[in-house]
Parts: sequence; structure tokens; C-alpha cells
Amino acid sequence: MIQARVLIRPKEGILDAQGKAVEGALPALGFSGIEHVRIGRIVELEADSTDQLEELCEKLLANPLIEDYEIETVSG
Amino acid sequence: MIQARVLIRPKEGILDAQGKAVEGALPALGFSGIEHVRIGRIVELEADSTDQLEELCEKLLANPLIEDYEIETVSG
Repeated sequence: MIQARVLIRPKEGILDAQGKAVEGALPALGFSGIEHVRIGRIVELEADSTDQLEELCEKLLANPLIEDYEIETVSG
Repeated sequence: MIQARVLIRPKEGILDAQGKAVEGALPALGFSGIEHVRIGRIVELEADSTDQLEELCEKLLANPLIEDYEIETVSG
């Protein structure tokens, strides 16, 4: 089995509402010097082969209109 | 500035509802041989130092009761 990790991030230029919410909360919690917060998803899974992973991302895991994804395989 | 990446995952033994939903959707979409899907969050940010990152995770980014987090720094 292949261990795969898919990182899904909002595309550049797309509003990252979660990231903005975190940035907005930082000063009230006493944090400073932290910026450019972007929040995405990480999907970890085991697969028989890497063949289907691209299609899986396009169809199910990510929304290609507003999100970029990156597939990392740990063992082959 | 330090580029940091925080990976936040449901703890072992905690129900991962999103992961289960993805697993449930796989057969209907024609995927097979994919299992153990776990879904978490990835937070990417820039910070002046790494000092605050642990506290940031505990207080704001993760829920330590049900989530594990892992901090990776890209450049120091």
C-alpha cells in the first residue's frame, strides 16, 4: 500500500476566510509577529496505487475552481 | 521571517467524520483500493520566531482534547 498525503489550499487570490479569522484573533490573544496565515486541509490515505489519486482530488477531495492540491506519496 | 506549517489531525481513536464521509463516497464514484482516509487541517504562516507557535496551536489553531498537531518550520 502507498501512503499518500494530499495538501489542499485555497488558490492564490481566493479569500481564505479561516486564515483571516485566525489573523484577526491573534492580537486579542496576545500574539504578535505572525502573519500571512493560510488554512487548508490535509488528507492522508492508503492506496493500492497512485493512478487514481489525481482523479480522486479533482472529483472528491478538492474543489479545483478555488483550491490547489498537492499529492505527496510517502512509500511506493 | 520563519515559514511554519502546522499539521492538525484528529487524534487516534477519535471519530474522523470527514474521513469516514470520503471513504463512504469512494465506491459510488468508482474508486477502489483506497482506505484509512483521515482528514485534518494545514495552517501555513509566517512568524518572527518559533517561540509562540506551540502556544498558538494550543490556544487557537488546534483543539488539544481531540486533535494532535505537528509544527514544521521551513526556514529559520
